Amino acid sequence: MPSLRPAIDGARLRKTLDGINAFGHNPQTGGYNRQGFSDADMAVRRWFEEEARTDGFKVRRDAAANVFVRYGPAEGPCVMSGSHLDTVPEGGAFDGALGVAVAWEALRAMRDAGITPAIAVEAVATAEEEGRFGGMLGSQAITGKVTRQWIDQATDATGETLAAAMRAQGLDPYAVLDAARPAGTIKAFVELHIEQGPVLEAGGTPIGIAHSVSGVSYIAARMEGRANHSGTTPMDMRADAFRGLADVAADIPSLIETIGTDQSRITIGKVDLEPNFPHTIPGIAEFTIIIRDTDESIMQALTDAVRASIESAARRHGLGHTVETKSWLAPVALDGRLEKLLGEEAKALGLAAQSMPSGAGHDAQTMQSLCPSALVFVPSRNGISHAPEEWTDWADIEKGAQLVLNALVRLSCETN
Amino acid sequence: MPSLRPAIDGARLRKTLDGINAFGHNPQTGGYNRQGFSDADMAVRRWFEEEARTDGFKVRRDAAANVFVRYGPAEGPCVMSGSHLDTVPEGGAFDGALGVAVAWEALRAMRDAGITPAIAVEAVATAEEEGRFGGMLGSQAITGKVTRQWIDQATDATGETLAAAMRAQGLDPYAVLDAARPAGTIKAFVELHIEQGPVLEAGGTPIGIAHSVSGVSYIAARMEGRANHSGTTPMDMRADAFRGLADVAADIPSLIETIGTDQSRITIGKVDLEPNFPHTIPGIAEFTIIIRDTDESIMQALTDAVRASIESAARRHGLGHTVETKSWLAPVALDGRLEKLLGEEAKALGLAAQSMPSGAGHDAQTMQSLCPSALVFVPSRNGISHAPEEWTDWADIEKGAQLVLNALVRLSCETN
Repeated sequence: MPSLRPAIDGARLRKTLDGINAFGHNPQTGGYNRQGFSDADMAVRRWFEEEARTDGFKVRRDAAANVFVRYGPAEGPCVMSGSHLDTVPEGGAFDGALGVAVAWEALRAMRDAGITPAIAVEAVATAEEEGRFGGMLGSQAITGKVTRQWIDQATDATGETLAAAMRAQGLDPYAVLDAARPAGTIKAFVELHIEQGPVLEAGGTPIGIAHSVSGVSYIAARMEGRANHSGTTPMDMRADAFRGLADVAADIPSLIETIGTDQSRITIGKVDLEPNFPHTIPGIAEFTIIIRDTDESIMQALTDAVRASIESAARRHGLGHTVETKSWLAPVALDGRLEKLLGEEAKALGLAAQSMPSGAGHDAQTMQSLCPSALVFVPSRNGISHAPEEWTDWADIEKGAQLVLNALVRLSCETN
Repeated sequence: MPSLRPAIDGARLRKTLDGINAFGHNPQTGGYNRQGFSDADMAVRRWFEEEARTDGFKVRRDAAANVFVRYGPAEGPCVMSGSHLDTVPEGGAFDGALGVAVAWEALRAMRDAGITPAIAVEAVATAEEEGRFGGMLGSQAITGKVTRQWIDQATDATGETLAAAMRAQGLDPYAVLDAARPAGTIKAFVELHIEQGPVLEAGGTPIGIAHSVSGVSYIAARMEGRANHSGTTPMDMRADAFRGLADVAADIPSLIETIGTDQSRITIGKVDLEPNFPHTIPGIAEFTIIIRDTDESIMQALTDAVRASIESAARRHGLGHTVETKSWLAPVALDGRLEKLLGEEAKALGLAAQSMPSGAGHDAQTMQSLCPSALVFVPSRNGISHAPEEWTDWADIEKGAQLVLNALVRLSCETN
């Protein structure tokens, strides 16, 4: 008689994650290197397929190198869970890989508990989520968001084209255009991911459930003054590009206080001065400003305010300036019903769960354009990600995995 | 019968300057490259010696490659004028070279006017003023300020040692220790130099007479926070090293207003962030702060206040920090009597002259330790120096040159 309370096997889950992380490991740094369509990325996909097949699951791969492991009815729609197997350069052990391992573990736990779902459950290992080529190719392929024009122009930071990288792996880049899953064939998507931020850890909360994914406005600015001698130029005769930038930075807290919300983030992450000599007043300051919010109108208002701050600082310090919006990604509201369902299941497990925005981008935001999608967070130690120090405690992982399992059981067994 | 009103020959002066600038010119950039003890630097010295000898002057070179051209009594003390022939990499046509050309032109004008000075006048072309090896070797040799220890440790930015660079030119570095001119053998030193700042041009003033040379406090600071994800880290949970730096920059105007004077200069010229990625909160900010004033106690107070500002910003943003004083050069008061004499001569010529500090370092500040020294500035277009765009109008140059000539005549003919 089948159990209705299937349970995550923590040791088996850990073995899967360790298996994934045997690929692309750099023992010198402790980082992982499975960039999209690299040899290590392709090798981990073959390994994952082989493991799932050997364990008796049906496995399919699409033209974008997304891998799907299926449990339940061979035909018809599915409920899907998963994340990505690719990493950033020198990334951590959990970003993406954990969500794939948890999804497959959920399928195995359902099978081991003898559950026969009414609709299939699929674990997906998406491709190229980290944006080596500037997108989220795997989930964009599933949702039919990839165009031939996009394929033709996509290159990585070294200038290698997506097409060349795929062909080097024996893949046909244009076949990605036919990888879309038809509307209605995926009933729901649930992604487990590490938070990559400090909020859950700081609150001692094991589970986060994202209500939305922040939009991102990426501004590249340049202020230009005069690179004069630091000794011979009186303070009131300077056109100091760094002073202009510092004024903009100083404006940020009050901009957020007056226009933003507690979900607003404004970051000056990259600064390059010229000539960048100690004894010379900076003549040029080039810098980036990343503005995020879950509300697009607030994102727009903050972006306008940052532009006004740059203009005002430039005027005040006698600087020329240019401001370019390099990209604009609108916020995505995730599915409210799925969020509620996950909250109920967390409560049933006795797990404190926090409704929160996702500040980082994830496959779930792309999937939301095709089907109701949800994003479950587990805590990140010190909020660190994209680095070898990335870590989530195993106790927290098992809580999150059990929550995903229970949600998938409910979604696949309780049809209505 | 000798004229008592010798006059600068502008065309001849220009020919000398053009002759100097035939050495080390980079036609691609328009810049000049006669770094201390480079081939171009040694070649221009040989050319200058040859020109002066051919014109009938007595020429001497010391062990530091300082070149002295003498007019008047063969024995006994002298009044000296001049500046340096070396340049920074890709420097301008006037910095140093003009002062050498003017000094020699003054000697020629005196000779042509039939003036027989009571004490000799020497034009000097000093060596290695621009600090390729971290000092002002030529004038420090003349004033006996060079030590064997200093010679042994002096290297340029590429790691080449002073000793190796001198030996490659057939010079004995330790012979520099014997190049000092005995006290009393130089009665006065007058240096003409371009201002390298915007003050004279802005005021429409042809002549500046420096009362002092600013001291320089060079601080290297590092603030260290956490390089977290710009999307997942709420504003109030960040340790943003750039925010710390921006706060320090924002403090500077009020520090100068409350502690400093109109001669204070504080410059953040070099900033390096890590990881310096748009989407990552800066984890490390390394930056330099150069603090200058003509009053050492104010320099000290400003340095203390900058350190306190760094500490306060670090505390406010949860940052670790280190602050290192890389160097401390005390201000130098130039000779008041010479300053007064130059002011009188400027007035006699009908030239408006401004008493001002020198924000940059010059041979005159070193010479002041041996003899009364003065520094005459001519205007720099747009305040630009150390660049191919460096420029001073010829009308201004001739005014400054005539002033130096008249001062040298008075100093060498009116003994008391």
